[in-house]
Amino acid sequence: MDIMTRIERRLAAALAPADDGPPLLAAAMRHAVFPRGARLRPRLCLAVAAACAEDAPAVADAAAAAIELLHCASLVHDDLPCFDDAATRRGRPTVQCAFGAPLAVLAGDALIVLAFQVLGEGAARRPQRLPTLLAIITAATGAPAGIAAGQAWECEKQPDLGRYQRAKTGALFAAATLAGAAAAGAPAEPWRALGERLGEAYQVADDIADAMATPETLGKPVGQDAALGRPNAVAAFGLEGALSHLDALAEAAVAAIPPCRGAAALRALTLQESRRLLPIGLTRRVA
Amino acid sequence: MDIMTRIERRLAAALAPADDGPPLLAAAMRHAVFPRGARLRPRLCLAVAAACAEDAPAVADAAAAAIELLHCASLVHDDLPCFDDAATRRGRPTVQCAFGAPLAVLAGDALIVLAFQVLGEGAARRPQRLPTLLAIITAATGAPAGIAAGQAWECEKQPDLGRYQRAKTGALFAAATLAGAAAAGAPAEPWRALGERLGEAYQVADDIADAMATPETLGKPVGQDAALGRPNAVAAFGLEGALSHLDALAEAAVAAIPPCRGAAALRALTLQESRRLLPIGLTRRVA
Repeated sequence: MDIMTRIERRLAAALAPADDGPPLLAAAMRHAVFPRGARLRPRLCLAVAAACAEDAPAVADAAAAAIELLHCASLVHDDLPCFDDAATRRGRPTVQCAFGAPLAVLAGDALIVLAFQVLGEGAARRPQRLPTLLAIITAATGAPAGIAAGQAWECEKQPDLGRYQRAKTGALFAAATLAGAAAAGAPAEPWRALGERLGEAYQVADDIADAMATPETLGKPVGQDAALGRPNAVAAFGLEGALSHLDALAEAAVAAIPPCRGAAALRALTLQESRRLLPIGLTRRVA
Repeated sequence: MDIMTRIERRLAAALAPADDGPPLLAAAMRHAVFPRGARLRPRLCLAVAAACAEDAPAVADAAAAAIELLHCASLVHDDLPCFDDAATRRGRPTVQCAFGAPLAVLAGDALIVLAFQVLGEGAARRPQRLPTLLAIITAATGAPAGIAAGQAWECEKQPDLGRYQRAKTGALFAAATLAGAAAAGAPAEPWRALGERLGEAYQVADDIADAMATPETLGKPVGQDAALGRPNAVAAFGLEGALSHLDALAEAAVAAIPPCRGAAALRALTLQESRRLLPIGLTRRVA
């Protein structure tokens, strides 16, 4: 089964039980997770697990799904009226726009909880891997240095911009590579640098998209960084500078892949994915 | 060490690392957890673990702290402007009132994540207990039948009132008894009925408080059920009827305690706690 099919099946199975609860909550959770976005983080997680010669695919599937659920939850809460107040994402209404703020808060909460439920189910036969997986994934999502902390730096008068970006974007990419290794029973720490470089690359690509794309190619509002006074690589280095930085980060990511059986395949995948970080319409426009 | 000291120490240790992140987020999380409320659920969890002759106090401490963190997170999100828009709780400003809605959303999110981090840390030496503990605690907090689902029934046009109350209040009480047993390595399911009866008793006591107390004795607004059109036992059965129902539920809880080494002590504790469910000022007024 290919990686994307594994991810979509695990996510669909994870969401199914919610249908037995309040219908609008179930619909809001589903709206947040399907149809799929790029699924960058879970694909990275499964690619690393495969490179580490995974012996328990159910654990890796669960880790990948948990990371994607947490990513989707963070988007739902980011779009709330008290943050970005966003009306569109992935080319259609956000959860808060389609279901209202109360259900957006609750859908985000329920997706966070669901991530840990899925992790516990997937690792039921390898429980000795759970403490490490829980440590990796919670560090990337809570305080002091996960997604919630990243967003919270926006509430500070003098935010630490490096920590802001590492927490808001980099942490979950690092968790994807660390968790992929841990799910396969391999030492996790050697995989941190790959995730961190890809997280930085994603941040730069996101900055380029926000500065250069149209809402039609991006499926969400553009120019948000300038409007909200957030740091942006294009504003700081210009378009050419940002594109060069993106290339350098992709090469650094490839160089950071630890020795492993699947290293060659992972190197090829990393380069290919790095090129795809920019939206297709934007790639053409920039080229 | 007495039960309350164990709980407060574990919670303090859990919150400490947040101080290394964005300061307002750390302060908001702390505001949500300290100073303590009644700590009903973690006390129940540790009492059951003791009754089951716990062999790994670190696991029980972690389960109890995780449940309390999730309870606190749910209160922070319940108080948001898009739900109750509450200004006071436990006699002082709510998190959203003191820190604003963005930090209240993020503090709730970070507390949910922290609960699972604490659970993973506490069970690191007994990882085989983690899948069950994760299943119990996530079922009580997410969809389809946990706290988030309970709150989401309020967003439905035709809510299922029984499921609403079981999910919003009963589920976490049941999780407290189930997790106490599971943390001690005992079969969990026989402990469900005790938690469910105590959850119902708590709901009735909460209804009585909302209908009869003053904001001063309760430390939060009263009359919310009537104002928000929520079901209330006093409205349904009158004050005498609600008090009789509370007594009957306390007796049913005692009768539901499974045979175990610590059964006698737990029976005494259950009766004592049931009497304390009503706020002190209200008990005097009702008497």
